[in-house]
Amino acid sequence: MQTYKAPLRDMRFVLHELHDSTALTQLHGLEEVSPDLMDSILEEAGKLAEEVLLPTNTAGDEYGCVLENGVVRTPKGFKEAYDAFRDGGWTALAADPQYGGQGLPESLNKLIEEMICSANLSFSLYPGLTHGAYQAIAAHASDELKDTYLPKMVAGTWSGTMCLTEAHCGTDLGMLRTRAVPQPDGSYKVSGSKIFISAGEHDLTENIIHLVLARLPDAPKGTRGISMFLVPKFIPTADGRPGVRNGVICTALEHKMGIKGSATCQLTFEEATGWLVGEPNKGLATMFTMMNSERLSVGIQGLGAAETSYQSAVAYARERIQGRSLGGVKAADKAADKAADPIIVHPDVRRMLLRMRAYTEGCRALGGWVARQLDVLERSNDPDARRQAEDFTALMTPVVKALFTDLGFEATNLGMQVYGGHGYIRDHGMEQLVRDARISMIYEGTNGIQALDLVGRKLPQGAGRLLRTFFHPVSEFIERHRNHLLLGQMVKGLEKAFGALQLATAHIAAAGMADPEEAGAAASEYLRLFGLVALGFMWTRTAVIAVEKLAKPDADAGFYKAKLTTARFYMERVLPEVAGLLTAIKAGKRAMMDMEEAAF
Amino acid sequence: MQTYKAPLRDMRFVLHELHDSTALTQLHGLEEVSPDLMDSILEEAGKLAEEVLLPTNTAGDEYGCVLENGVVRTPKGFKEAYDAFRDGGWTALAADPQYGGQGLPESLNKLIEEMICSANLSFSLYPGLTHGAYQAIAAHASDELKDTYLPKMVAGTWSGTMCLTEAHCGTDLGMLRTRAVPQPDGSYKVSGSKIFISAGEHDLTENIIHLVLARLPDAPKGTRGISMFLVPKFIPTADGRPGVRNGVICTALEHKMGIKGSATCQLTFEEATGWLVGEPNKGLATMFTMMNSERLSVGIQGLGAAETSYQSAVAYARERIQGRSLGGVKAADKAADKAADPIIVHPDVRRMLLRMRAYTEGCRALGGWVARQLDVLERSNDPDARRQAEDFTALMTPVVKALFTDLGFEATNLGMQVYGGHGYIRDHGMEQLVRDARISMIYEGTNGIQALDLVGRKLPQGAGRLLRTFFHPVSEFIERHRNHLLLGQMVKGLEKAFGALQLATAHIAAAGMADPEEAGAAASEYLRLFGLVALGFMWTRTAVIAVEKLAKPDADAGFYKAKLTTARFYMERVLPEVAGLLTAIKAGKRAMMDMEEAAF
Repeated sequence: MQTYKAPLRDMRFVLHELHDSTALTQLHGLEEVSPDLMDSILEEAGKLAEEVLLPTNTAGDEYGCVLENGVVRTPKGFKEAYDAFRDGGWTALAADPQYGGQGLPESLNKLIEEMICSANLSFSLYPGLTHGAYQAIAAHASDELKDTYLPKMVAGTWSGTMCLTEAHCGTDLGMLRTRAVPQPDGSYKVSGSKIFISAGEHDLTENIIHLVLARLPDAPKGTRGISMFLVPKFIPTADGRPGVRNGVICTALEHKMGIKGSATCQLTFEEATGWLVGEPNKGLATMFTMMNSERLSVGIQGLGAAETSYQSAVAYARERIQGRSLGGVKAADKAADKAADPIIVHPDVRRMLLRMRAYTEGCRALGGWVARQLDVLERSNDPDARRQAEDFTALMTPVVKALFTDLGFEATNLGMQVYGGHGYIRDHGMEQLVRDARISMIYEGTNGIQALDLVGRKLPQGAGRLLRTFFHPVSEFIERHRNHLLLGQMVKGLEKAFGALQLATAHIAAAGMADPEEAGAAASEYLRLFGLVALGFMWTRTAVIAVEKLAKPDADAGFYKAKLTTARFYMERVLPEVAGLLTAIKAGKRAMMDMEEAAF
Repeated sequence: MQTYKAPLRDMRFVLHELHDSTALTQLHGLEEVSPDLMDSILEEAGKLAEEVLLPTNTAGDEYGCVLENGVVRTPKGFKEAYDAFRDGGWTALAADPQYGGQGLPESLNKLIEEMICSANLSFSLYPGLTHGAYQAIAAHASDELKDTYLPKMVAGTWSGTMCLTEAHCGTDLGMLRTRAVPQPDGSYKVSGSKIFISAGEHDLTENIIHLVLARLPDAPKGTRGISMFLVPKFIPTADGRPGVRNGVICTALEHKMGIKGSATCQLTFEEATGWLVGEPNKGLATMFTMMNSERLSVGIQGLGAAETSYQSAVAYARERIQGRSLGGVKAADKAADKAADPIIVHPDVRRMLLRMRAYTEGCRALGGWVARQLDVLERSNDPDARRQAEDFTALMTPVVKALFTDLGFEATNLGMQVYGGHGYIRDHGMEQLVRDARISMIYEGTNGIQALDLVGRKLPQGAGRLLRTFFHPVSEFIERHRNHLLLGQMVKGLEKAFGALQLATAHIAAAGMADPEEAGAAASEYLRLFGLVALGFMWTRTAVIAVEKLAKPDADAGFYKAKLTTARFYMERVLPEVAGLLTAIKAGKRAMMDMEEAAF
């Protein structure tokens, strides 16, 4: 089994110290949400993750889900874990009190999502998709649909899915073929086949609510002819119990590299009864409410897996005895009676551990900023603040999704590498983390698609208006701290990297305007450059706080010293990668597009 | 099933055009080995890989190996494939004619190894380890042992293993506990437990010859007290048949992330009869003959998996219809009747494919150089040339092992990413390639250990003498081509990257001399920097040849144009990474070693 303890101290740092949680109480509905309350919820969530979810993680991978006669059985222990999860009220955490939710902020919810992903990534998909579907229904459905479905979904007795992909269309939803035919009673008959539907069928809840993209009979071609339908597995009775079985069946489960505890279903809809959610032919926009939420959640999956891999690797590096410290005497003092030193003394092992840590803590800090802006967007009384928050979260969604999952995969591979051969065999669960994390780079839009979203949609929007919500705070911070007595060097490092980001942005704005293929050719490297600078900003801000805290005699010195050291590691050994990214971006599309198709 | 055709055209380019195969005929024993002969052998090997080995690859992953009552059954189809492989004489290819070998050069053999790895990485381990054991026995054993064992191993009726790792010692072999007690008849009784023994037990050959590291009763502590023993599964009878069953049994098979067709065994030796190979207490040096050979072969595994992933991804990118070309009209000409364009039109897909290709072709070129020098080392009459070749291959062994496997893993992940969700499910075999390739970064010394070998042993050796065998040719090439009419820019790019490598080398030489932890802190980044420059050298040399060929009217123009484009892609979009690596190296060990152990 993997090693995992919820990183409560760091989560409190992100929530309270880095992003000042007291400001949350000025937002609508959060007046009573004190730091103490949030801390105690984090603590409880940590126990749940460590004691209830983590113990199911290995079995989930070992046994996977099983389909028999259209019924999907989740792995041993999942049902009991889900019952505890639901009974503890965790499905209601960030939902609207109107539907039985606890109305807690995303700033808190995202940290708890991370814990769930750390403990059992496969499990996280079931409540995660339910929450996304909840959001889409809450934002776009009729009051009748909301009143019928949301209380059950918030209570966790019913779950949700998103049904987009078909065998011939993944990224390009314009080609989808599932049809919806209007019925006299205002409902629709939905028919078609969907693939890759996470939580499409399972035994954790008494009903499953599918949000399905389909075409109306008169729909225009392409993405402008897609509508969204709510299709329950069981049609609710008048008193809200699961009634008649609807025409949606699971025809197969996918066999996958990882997340084997998550049921990835092929679903066939045969004249299934559904109801329109939102406007006809606006289904893609409607679904984006759910997709944007899921994209952030998928980013958190990468972070969650990386955290568990890090903690496991640290534990192993402390106990595995192999080789003598290159530094000699110092380490021998401690382990002279043993045949060798623990491998944590070796610089190359520390290189791997610190890179993992710089990623996880950096991503947690950045995720906390985005979550805070989600709260502002949803709850602020100030329309300017809301607009800014909307711009910022729209800008950062593809960055969080792609960066966190790229780094998460890299981190889980580093964690496995620390174990050597013992990481490649299944016993320690390190290779499971790699396999589980790998999907996060693909689903909810591949990371390449996120990069195109960033350069093709988010950058040009409002002539760079979205970009300014990130660039301005970074510029201001650099201005303010450029001559920092202790951290001047670090701030200059950030400035240099930020300069590279500005040059890359200008290049794309100029070249991409004339030729969209130029923007496409730069997209992936640009997203990485953007993300690395964003983490650099988080780390430099963290370092400034750490120095302030360390100036006080009674500070939690060990914690802040580690923050400073990790910040320095990130700035000195990770961030310099941006130089090469800028050079690659400036090289343009030529080498890529010159290659004749037949020559590949 | 994956898509794979042996890349014969590129292999011929590496063998004949880049590394001038006609010079091979001047080496001892290769007088008759003409380019035509080698081409026809390559062609036959390609057929074997495509038609016999590739079809067993998926089943190997699906069914894996099974242990029942001490007997290991390889997956369905492996035995038949091995029989064909052995009967075709492929086990004898690079072996000495004295023992029934065909005496063909490593320059050819390494290309064929690549094909085998591309077709079925798990399968490649069985003959691969036999060849490594053959080399160690041929170099160090008594004539009696050689005459008894080598003809059988060359014929492929007996196979080989290397037994190093024990549960408590992997990297640090100094701690190993297996004992060998001398017997009056000159043999030894070997007792102990080994883990992670590839091909330790299986049903492909009638006997298995283990090379086992163990301690003599009076052996000094640590690595200076290790000796190497030959321990057969069946003790040969006087007439060379497998006789009495020896005291070595397979107690368990490891369950692994990948290479499931390879039997990874726990072996227990209980007073097993063995014979000393080489000098007492010099077993580590003796084993290094095998290990160096295996390290190069493991590098080739990374390359082999990457090639198959590349070919599969290209095939998928040509047929998968999704989205419209950003370039519009041009692509629409071809696919206007379809709902979308094949994804190979998209710059971001081409980015992934070209990166994979730049890696595979670059590694193949570099591998060809190293293989050539192995031939010189083994066969040249010129002692200076042999010494240079020895230095060069010693220098490049850790680079090939770590670079090829790091890039191989990255490439298989890119190939999987091209498939999107269809890459994560098992159907296309793309995720298998990722799982299979992953082990290559770990076994035969983790890539971190390779990096330490490079900076800690190979760089300082002879005051940089080894290094000069690489630096001189690069310098000379840059001098000669700096003002190349068409490629001046590319050569300058190489010069810049080479400059970074020289600075990094100087940094390590200075800082690492004073403090070995400084060398350790720089090692992994240095190896990558070194490797990327080496590939840059290969690509620039390739480009020079391509330009020459394209100047002639009847050239194979498509091939050379693709070479030029891929070279440009590598130099513009991959090699710039070296800038960040140099910065990271120069930052030194501080951030890594400052972290207190308890703070991780």
